[in-house]
Amino acid sequence: MKILILGADGYLGWSTTVALSNDNHELILLDNYSKRKYMRKLGKKTLNNIPKAESRLKLLNNKNKILFYSLDCSIYSNMLSIIKKHKPDAIIHFAELPSAPFSMFNHKYSWETIRNNLQSTFNLLQCVKDVIPNCHIIKLGTMGEYGTPNIDIEEGWLKINHNKRSDKFLYPRQGSSLYHTSKIMDTDLIWFYTRMHNLRCTDLMQGPVYGIYPIQNIKNDQLVPMFTYDDIFGTVLNRFIVQAIVDKPLTIYGKGTQIRGYINVIDSINCIKITLQNLPKKGELKIYNQFTEQFSVLELSKIVKKSLKKININVKVNKIENPRIEKEKHFYNAKHSNLEKLGLKPLKLSEEIVIDIANYCQKFKKNIDTKTIIPKVKWQ
Amino acid sequence: MKILILGADGYLGWSTTVALSNDNHELILLDNYSKRKYMRKLGKKTLNNIPKAESRLKLLNNKNKILFYSLDCSIYSNMLSIIKKHKPDAIIHFAELPSAPFSMFNHKYSWETIRNNLQSTFNLLQCVKDVIPNCHIIKLGTMGEYGTPNIDIEEGWLKINHNKRSDKFLYPRQGSSLYHTSKIMDTDLIWFYTRMHNLRCTDLMQGPVYGIYPIQNIKNDQLVPMFTYDDIFGTVLNRFIVQAIVDKPLTIYGKGTQIRGYINVIDSINCIKITLQNLPKKGELKIYNQFTEQFSVLELSKIVKKSLKKININVKVNKIENPRIEKEKHFYNAKHSNLEKLGLKPLKLSEEIVIDIANYCQKFKKNIDTKTIIPKVKWQ
Repeated sequence: MKILILGADGYLGWSTTVALSNDNHELILLDNYSKRKYMRKLGKKTLNNIPKAESRLKLLNNKNKILFYSLDCSIYSNMLSIIKKHKPDAIIHFAELPSAPFSMFNHKYSWETIRNNLQSTFNLLQCVKDVIPNCHIIKLGTMGEYGTPNIDIEEGWLKINHNKRSDKFLYPRQGSSLYHTSKIMDTDLIWFYTRMHNLRCTDLMQGPVYGIYPIQNIKNDQLVPMFTYDDIFGTVLNRFIVQAIVDKPLTIYGKGTQIRGYINVIDSINCIKITLQNLPKKGELKIYNQFTEQFSVLELSKIVKKSLKKININVKVNKIENPRIEKEKHFYNAKHSNLEKLGLKPLKLSEEIVIDIANYCQKFKKNIDTKTIIPKVKWQ
Repeated sequence: MKILILGADGYLGWSTTVALSNDNHELILLDNYSKRKYMRKLGKKTLNNIPKAESRLKLLNNKNKILFYSLDCSIYSNMLSIIKKHKPDAIIHFAELPSAPFSMFNHKYSWETIRNNLQSTFNLLQCVKDVIPNCHIIKLGTMGEYGTPNIDIEEGWLKINHNKRSDKFLYPRQGSSLYHTSKIMDTDLIWFYTRMHNLRCTDLMQGPVYGIYPIQNIKNDQLVPMFTYDDIFGTVLNRFIVQAIVDKPLTIYGKGTQIRGYINVIDSINCIKITLQNLPKKGELKIYNQFTEQFSVLELSKIVKKSLKKININVKVNKIENPRIEKEKHFYNAKHSNLEKLGLKPLKLSEEIVIDIANYCQKFKKNIDTKTIIPKVKWQ
């Protein structure tokens, strides 16, 4: 399959690139390195100080040539020229600013998150409609779009019965940051184009991701994706493990009773592979909830503590004032059976997995800057 | 009350300005004349060739000075400086590109509609949050955000019962153009800011507007708002009346069985006055469906035909291929009692009203360019 990956330098984009290159797809990669740029501006560093995608490409053992473009796909002419030139069978869209705290940092970053995410999605949809309407668009959404409603969270859609009539709608969405709101707007847009112009789209509503691809099988350190642990771009479980190995307390925001659905990056990649094999019909937007287990933040901290005790790391835990505005006590029951029905075999979080991640992080212990972990962006 | 009106030069913005100036509020007006600019670019003209707001201000008999700024409020620093300087009690937000066909014209106008509408709303919400969080934001939404669902349309919100639990959500929205989708994104944004930052907001979900303010009482022709009738910026009833008086057939898109909720601009102004008197609580987003009657396009054409026969105009009707993608046969039952409960006395569409509008249009018959009426923008 000829696959275009937007945002190929990132944590998920690069993991996907490595995974798909092993399957010998024809790959076209695109990234403008904006995440690296904003990390530099904000004084954040990755754990593993990985070189840019361009310089790592030659290490991939792919039968086909892999092309890389250093382009901003929120510029229409860039997107159009790549799509016209390569006419891919599938496009995987990771080219979004992915951080809730970044989107709440100041008015410039708030608008930049909305603009970048929406404009890249708009350009993608518009160019696919005009040039390759049969192409499979795979967009990364987030479980955070649903927020924490008081009813079961279904997979993307909800049949509503009201006054003796019924209809099917997008499941209601209300996120807890401008980043999440930008993803909701993305959904508004992808559903508009799909139904109006008979496109073929899949939206992957992903929970917070953890781990390293491919942790059990790292043949070359240069092929590992960038690993972030700071307060802006890091996600909770990866950050906890980094805090633990430098003997700092895990920072729990508020009571830690916030429940979310989590996924190992290895499963995340498997979900994308499954999605590539399941082309939507024309005019169909498939939506899958892409996570495998629900945990509260408190539960996660306990799992980290228990796991790392086995390698003689004594984990401390510290509850700090919640910088976010979010419900701490809430109902949460999110469905996630669609991808399993299509063949996903979930890799559940285990002590072994936590230890594997910790062992990888240990190698870069000297790089860790703990000052960048404590949250500074406050919602109010 | 000190009131800031964004988009004060437009059909609704100017009507609101004239109406509120009679009530002796303190008014600050803002417009960047972008609608005039795009009309020029597209070769469209208003019926009544009205001068810009700035040059008409002196004709208003207001006790207080009325200020006008020729500024683009999608530029953050503009919005911030006006809000810091004047600290209004209420802000009425009309500063959006208001046309479905414009938003479907080409990729530039598609993105421009999304960007302009979303960025002006973002700037407004962000500046109000930072500077005057108690200010009442009144945003114009559209009934078109709801689309044509198979269940009753409630006023903005819907209680959903699902698997023995329940919660209240924004009523599901799916519009039939990128303009309508930009308004849905506006709603995502205003609801985010309202609940996160305890703002006080009202969203007026308006149906297509017709008529002239104040048709029964035009003291000075220069004070009438701009009246558009073309295929891009005109709305259906006004356009039908213009077609009738130049002896052209009314152009019905498709079968004409599309049902929408309509409102006379005089009622529209009354709704805004009522809204100004009903300040939401902190953190509350009030949503009203702002229309008074449902009609199919076919019914509207029949009302025009019957009314104008009384002044000896023989109206012809022509069904043309629908340039839009929209359901022609559909259920439609939209609630609209909130504003009536607060005191709105609906001015229902009558033969007399159609004749009054036609008589006004007759005065400008020589200006009418019928070539600009036939729709050229096709959704597909």
